[in-house]
Amino acid sequence: MSERMVVIGGGAAGMSAASAARRTNPALDVVVLESTSYIAYGLCGLPYYLSGVVATADDLFAYPMERFTKDRGIDVRTAAVVTELDPDGQWVVYRMGERTLRLSYSSVVVTAGATPVHVEVPDIGADRTFAVRTLEEAIALRGLLDAGKVGSALVVGAGYIGLEMAEALVARGCSVTVVERLDQVLPTLDPEVAAVVEGHVRERVDLRLGTDACAPGLPVVDLAVVSVGVRPAATLAAVAGAQTGPAGALLVDAQMRTTLPGVWAAGDCIAPLHRVTGEPAYVPLGTTANKTGRVAGTVAAGGSASFPGIVGTAVVKVFDLEVARTGITLAEARAAGIEAVATDVVHRSRAKYYPGGSALHVRLVHGAGGRLLGAQMVGCEGAAQRIDVLATALQAGMTVGDLMALDLAYAPPYSPVYDPILIAAESAARRVEAS
Amino acid sequence: MSERMVVIGGGAAGMSAASAARRTNPALDVVVLESTSYIAYGLCGLPYYLSGVVATADDLFAYPMERFTKDRGIDVRTAAVVTELDPDGQWVVYRMGERTLRLSYSSVVVTAGATPVHVEVPDIGADRTFAVRTLEEAIALRGLLDAGKVGSALVVGAGYIGLEMAEALVARGCSVTVVERLDQVLPTLDPEVAAVVEGHVRERVDLRLGTDACAPGLPVVDLAVVSVGVRPAATLAAVAGAQTGPAGALLVDAQMRTTLPGVWAAGDCIAPLHRVTGEPAYVPLGTTANKTGRVAGTVAAGGSASFPGIVGTAVVKVFDLEVARTGITLAEARAAGIEAVATDVVHRSRAKYYPGGSALHVRLVHGAGGRLLGAQMVGCEGAAQRIDVLATALQAGMTVGDLMALDLAYAPPYSPVYDPILIAAESAARRVEAS
Repeated sequence: MSERMVVIGGGAAGMSAASAARRTNPALDVVVLESTSYIAYGLCGLPYYLSGVVATADDLFAYPMERFTKDRGIDVRTAAVVTELDPDGQWVVYRMGERTLRLSYSSVVVTAGATPVHVEVPDIGADRTFAVRTLEEAIALRGLLDAGKVGSALVVGAGYIGLEMAEALVARGCSVTVVERLDQVLPTLDPEVAAVVEGHVRERVDLRLGTDACAPGLPVVDLAVVSVGVRPAATLAAVAGAQTGPAGALLVDAQMRTTLPGVWAAGDCIAPLHRVTGEPAYVPLGTTANKTGRVAGTVAAGGSASFPGIVGTAVVKVFDLEVARTGITLAEARAAGIEAVATDVVHRSRAKYYPGGSALHVRLVHGAGGRLLGAQMVGCEGAAQRIDVLATALQAGMTVGDLMALDLAYAPPYSPVYDPILIAAESAARRVEAS
Repeated sequence: MSERMVVIGGGAAGMSAASAARRTNPALDVVVLESTSYIAYGLCGLPYYLSGVVATADDLFAYPMERFTKDRGIDVRTAAVVTELDPDGQWVVYRMGERTLRLSYSSVVVTAGATPVHVEVPDIGADRTFAVRTLEEAIALRGLLDAGKVGSALVVGAGYIGLEMAEALVARGCSVTVVERLDQVLPTLDPEVAAVVEGHVRERVDLRLGTDACAPGLPVVDLAVVSVGVRPAATLAAVAGAQTGPAGALLVDAQMRTTLPGVWAAGDCIAPLHRVTGEPAYVPLGTTANKTGRVAGTVAAGGSASFPGIVGTAVVKVFDLEVARTGITLAEARAAGIEAVATDVVHRSRAKYYPGGSALHVRLVHGAGGRLLGAQMVGCEGAAQRIDVLATALQAGMTVGDLMALDLAYAPPYSPVYDPILIAAESAARRVEAS
């Protein structure tokens, strides 16, 4: 029998793993078991499909199925739900419709993703409550929107997805109420930065902070979207004995090995190393899913690759704002017992005299000796790509003093002569000097 | 007598030096001698003032004169042309109108800037030939444009300023011919990257490469703009004995000291350290002028500061294109005897399914062991700020392998899940592995 790799999950991580494995070892038999009907679509694109910015669900597929099956020779089985993983016997059990099947493997890559946390919304039936975590669900919801059946909606949770969904529903002409249990939007930002976003959101939807889905006095709505976070789908591997860490996600080394022999993992079910804290962290994002999937597939197929970790970079479009972060927030630093302060500046995104610029809020979080620990940015332009400068600086272990010396590009249409990053770095460096 | 700092030149470097000096030592007497009538305006904004994007010349001033004179207590003398510098006697001689004056100093900062290289344009009088290096000139040219007296123009030189000027003139409805002596536009890019820009420019102006201003067959035009580069205004200090380097620019250490005691220099007349080559380089840009001016003023006033060098980052808007570079080009690497190869990719600037994206050309130049040496980018969006990621990576001494691991931000409106930088890095890393 030839060697067989089984990949559990056909999302970004799973298809990256499968493709990388076939590239690494073309003789390898690669089977992907995906629980839904679709593989390898842009999960992050669902809000834009709902808003209509993306015209059809087909547009969300990076490649047609044949690219994986015919061109890359991957055996993709959809609607295949894995129910058991036996790392000693080296087999998995999965269900397809009525049938229960067993498949032996020489290596297995767990890319089962994450499942949305469910919240009961009073007075809204299950058929009108959406998590929008799968394409099936998005298609159903888009059907309702296209049919003109949604005049009002409740969004539960004001995280990345909640606000993207609020924007999408507003774009479709809905009257939108957003409730958030916490006292701020975007809990992955520091409150002071989130406040800038909050003001922008309040102008566009009925935003209620410190409020949950059961609070009295909420308007009667046509449907609800629940986006209060996800949990890693790690149970299968955890039950089989794999060690878990933050949020119950699977612990992996830099080669994406779990603690079980012959079992790799990648994507939204793992907690990779956070390079700023030096600890594993659960930050489920598409970029990391793609990268860790590729590493897992390469290594599991006998190749060489490694994933040095994340620095916690993320960006989200919130109506007209670009909202971005990298590293750790001041709140996260304090929770982790890391000495830190935050330096905030607001500066124009372009030369003062060049039209079209707007205010860019920059927060740098820095620790002992001015070491950069994180950054947050909010503005109508210039945040989404500028944050990557700081992500790069974090990877390099720079101080705010090092940032001041960055030779950043300047032309009046794109930035002021002192980029907002340099302004923030100078302000931070002065505080470090004075301390 | 109190201590006196004389600053020669009131541009970005000079006013930065003067302001930093007053901040460092409020008791210091600071005199700025500026040869023109204006100080501290945005030189880089002149093309946008000519195009009308910037409405008035007043808009180009970062601050009103009083900010420097009253608030900061700087003695600014305009129309003051320095003719002699005596580092032993510690005095300068300058002319103001008919008068010749002598001023002693305890420290002097030379920020004389750069002067445009002149080219004679046949059949166009001196009054119709512009270098557009000073506000005076820009005001005169804008006057002609506003009066509707310019139907056609010849731009000599297709560097940054030449192409910015071509764009401005087209925006004013002129029929524009651009001649360039070399066989490519933007000689600071590699020819293969410049070719992308060339195609874009050709659709908008009559572009003639390998052609100089005296070539036969050029159209008869109403005026000419000459922008074939600048030379450092280093003569004054050089005659006084200061050592010069590339292009005749003044050599300075990290504290902006020239080789003459008591004489500092900054801005477009110096050749600071290039951190990629480890050699001094002449790259006159506004960002470096501001930074080096501040360091020179701080140190000359008794404070502590240093400038660790440039990495050669620059960006220019060329009609609808963002054109950016950092580090060194393949051609520059070869000229310097540095082993290097270039890896090119073309990738979309946004998620495939998200509308509004465009093709982004990325060239990475890398050397032994995959060390990043430089990068060039051209595209309708996403080049101007992405280049800063690579500038940061250069400062950190990263390899293309390090780049592959960057945790860059992703959301469909802003980038594909694998950012073009990561795609390019992966392609480069594969070549490094295979070699």
